[in-house]
Amino acid sequence: MFKPVRSRNPLLRLNPPQVLAAGFLVMILAGSGLLCLPAASASGQSMAYLDAVFMAASATCVTGLSVVNPGVDLTTFGQLVLIGLVQIGGLGFMTVATLIALVFRRRITFRERLILQETLSQSSTEGIIRLIRKVLVYAIVIESVGAILLFARFSFEMPLGQAAYFGAFHSISIFNNAGFDLFGAIEGRAGSLIHYVDDPFINLIAMPMILLGGIGFIVIADLLAFPKKRKLSLHSKVVLSMTGALVIVGAIVIFVFEFNNPATLKPLDLSGKTFASFFQSVTSRSAGLATLDVGALRQATQFFIVIMMFIGAAPGSAGGGIKVTTFAILIGAVLAMIRGRQDIVFFRYRIAQDRVYKAITFSLLSFLLIVVAAMILSVTENYSFLGILFETTSAYATAGISMGLTSQLTPFGQFLIIVLMFVGRLGPITLAFTLTPKMDKEPFRYPEGKVTIG
Amino acid sequence: MFKPVRSRNPLLRLNPPQVLAAGFLVMILAGSGLLCLPAASASGQSMAYLDAVFMAASATCVTGLSVVNPGVDLTTFGQLVLIGLVQIGGLGFMTVATLIALVFRRRITFRERLILQETLSQSSTEGIIRLIRKVLVYAIVIESVGAILLFARFSFEMPLGQAAYFGAFHSISIFNNAGFDLFGAIEGRAGSLIHYVDDPFINLIAMPMILLGGIGFIVIADLLAFPKKRKLSLHSKVVLSMTGALVIVGAIVIFVFEFNNPATLKPLDLSGKTFASFFQSVTSRSAGLATLDVGALRQATQFFIVIMMFIGAAPGSAGGGIKVTTFAILIGAVLAMIRGRQDIVFFRYRIAQDRVYKAITFSLLSFLLIVVAAMILSVTENYSFLGILFETTSAYATAGISMGLTSQLTPFGQFLIIVLMFVGRLGPITLAFTLTPKMDKEPFRYPEGKVTIG
Ligand SMILES: [K+]
Ligand SMILES: [K+]
Repeated sequence: MFKPVRSRNPLLRLNPPQVLAAGFLVMILAGSGLLCLPAASASGQSMAYLDAVFMAASATCVTGLSVVNPGVDLTTFGQLVLIGLVQIGGLGFMTVATLIALVFRRRITFRERLILQETLSQSSTEGIIRLIRKVLVYAIVIESVGAILLFARFSFEMPLGQAAYFGAFHSISIFNNAGFDLFGAIEGRAGSLIHYVDDPFINLIAMPMILLGGIGFIVIADLLAFPKKRKLSLHSKVVLSMTGALVIVGAIVIFVFEFNNPATLKPLDLSGKTFASFFQSVTSRSAGLATLDVGALRQATQFFIVIMMFIGAAPGSAGGGIKVTTFAILIGAVLAMIRGRQDIVFFRYRIAQDRVYKAITFSLLSFLLIVVAAMILSVTENYSFLGILFETTSAYATAGISMGLTSQLTPFGQFLIIVLMFVGRLGPITLAFTLTPKMDKEPFRYPEGKVTIG
Repeated sequence: MFKPVRSRNPLLRLNPPQVLAAGFLVMILAGSGLLCLPAASASGQSMAYLDAVFMAASATCVTGLSVVNPGVDLTTFGQLVLIGLVQIGGLGFMTVATLIALVFRRRITFRERLILQETLSQSSTEGIIRLIRKVLVYAIVIESVGAILLFARFSFEMPLGQAAYFGAFHSISIFNNAGFDLFGAIEGRAGSLIHYVDDPFINLIAMPMILLGGIGFIVIADLLAFPKKRKLSLHSKVVLSMTGALVIVGAIVIFVFEFNNPATLKPLDLSGKTFASFFQSVTSRSAGLATLDVGALRQATQFFIVIMMFIGAAPGSAGGGIKVTTFAILIGAVLAMIRGRQDIVFFRYRIAQDRVYKAITFSLLSFLLIVVAAMILSVTENYSFLGILFETTSAYATAGISMGLTSQLTPFGQFLIIVLMFVGRLGPITLAFTLTPKMDKEPFRYPEGKVTIG
């Protein structure tokens, strides 16, 4: 197979997902080492090593599940380690994923391979460096704008120095869809962003930032070029329309099911209800911050959120799950069948058969992993199955919200969730990179057979 | 489109699933009328009409969920009405489904259409009558053998007359995968077949009969012809291998997760544990009878059974669900991807792309229906979400086991479950008949587009 950069840089001889996995392991090890220093804990005593690994893995994989409360139990040093892991883990993943999507995965088809050999072989290293620089510039600009806006809002309720620190920390946490917050540091505050449930300012800063972090750089770049090119790629169109549809459907479902719930939407006025429904819809697919108490939602809403987390965000973004594009292809197959078409067509492009098989593969393997983990946890943990399923889905899809199980996990449960976070963050991209039909290896095709499936 | 029988018989001008749906509605109406006669209730007073509709729908759709206890609350007349509905509903469905699979669905491809026009147009009515006769003969032979064997077993513990009656009733109930039982009539008996959990005789009669009812007549006919032809159709191979795999995997999972459960497997010896695991595995996908207390299983096992019920039995059989063939195609896509193949290949036959899209369509629409119903019920019923999901899946997949919600349903809940049973029984076959890509209507294919799904 064609490997465009093989001869240039020995580091790139590992396949990119392997590099990423190795990097993540190193970061989790280093991060857990730093987090279990006494200087990282507010108590002045080392935290349990398993807790440190859990927090380091959760930060590096931008999951956001927490066994300690960052605003209460961590020192400023500990918080900086945490958000540093989020920043490196989040941007590192997005950069490599973007590289894979734009450069490496191209080796899939034979025709493209020939074209690429011409265009890439001469300037690949240069092109890759330019791409990485672009990704980092985007991220820094978005995070800076977010930090300034959040600083402005927080300056109304806390000292300027703290407001600046909170602005920067939460901007990074929000854009990378990490879900960590420091509000435990403020006396009498409920967790996460619950205090801001009907605050238009926080809602209108956080939601766009979460969405930007969740659509991936390819789409962001495409959007930036839109005013000039007046054209979006198929990938961007699918990501944007499916994201929009999921946000709206999610908000409606949450609004309807929680409308009368005294623990969530009932006390709010209409604008508060609307903000809360949209925020919870946006956040559920990957961000991990919440303006409602997830444990107090109705069982129906909680299960619905499990499905939203499972679907997740866009490929190559800060978010996880099976990805909105995967879900779009599954829905596309349903629509094609209902309309009696033989092809899945998005915006006048046909989706290749191998993409459909990939979509099935991602979905079923993800489902299998989440369910097997939930079945095992339901034996080791004393908790409702829905709460356990919520937890394993949240970990695998790097969503980071919890019905409350995280803080009660047994050591074995913690370990399993750590594994799920890691596999959930790196598994899909590894599969996507690895799974490509080797068409040239098939000497002939078998005749078509009929199987009744009605 | 080609309709081979249009000119012969005016009844067949409705499409076959419509005929089936109309027939089922008539049966449910007539059955509920009979069941709410005072003569049907052991109390001598009419049962609530909604209960009668529920029981009639459950019997006609061979679901097996019960709001009254047939052995206690029904008179012999009521029981005969119930088992009559099972027999007509079960065999009627299987006959029409077999007809659809063998005759009507053939109109799918253009080439086949031409071949059929020659072979069928002259003798279609005759061929259909021969086919129906064959189906009925198979069913009567299997049920008679089952009734005699069960009579022999029951004659050891009850008067001969009752044993004969119980043998016939349960043989029909078991073969049609209906799940109704009369053991409530015997003092001190636990429900369903729990009394026989480690009885080899009952296990070894019931399991093969459930499986025969669950594989469908096409496969049975294929198996009967095997000694002469030495060859099975692709459809039969897929059904048999997937059924076998599911039974074995299911038994292992149940054995492992329930091994230490004092309410289920723990009190049994190894052979009892093995029988119980296999029986519960066989029964879960559609039969509705149980030798273990489903409500006492571990949450992990209960959720696993939800998945087994969802998968269901074979097309055109007494069982429901998305069907083993649908599941096989999804698994085939995963295996093709993992092996780097471009085609799903079963036993040296390639599976057409439209079958894959159909498999996705069945699975997603079924999932959607089950989940939406569960979300609604979780608002109207006061029950754990897992119990509710179990109930809606059981109803839709015509499985008929319950964690206990059935007897506590609100009237609205009962109504929703009735709808689910009906839609679950007739929806898939209707979709399978209706959803066919109209290839000749597509003047051109769109160019292939790329969407990243990793
Ligand atoms: K997250
Ligand atoms: K059943």
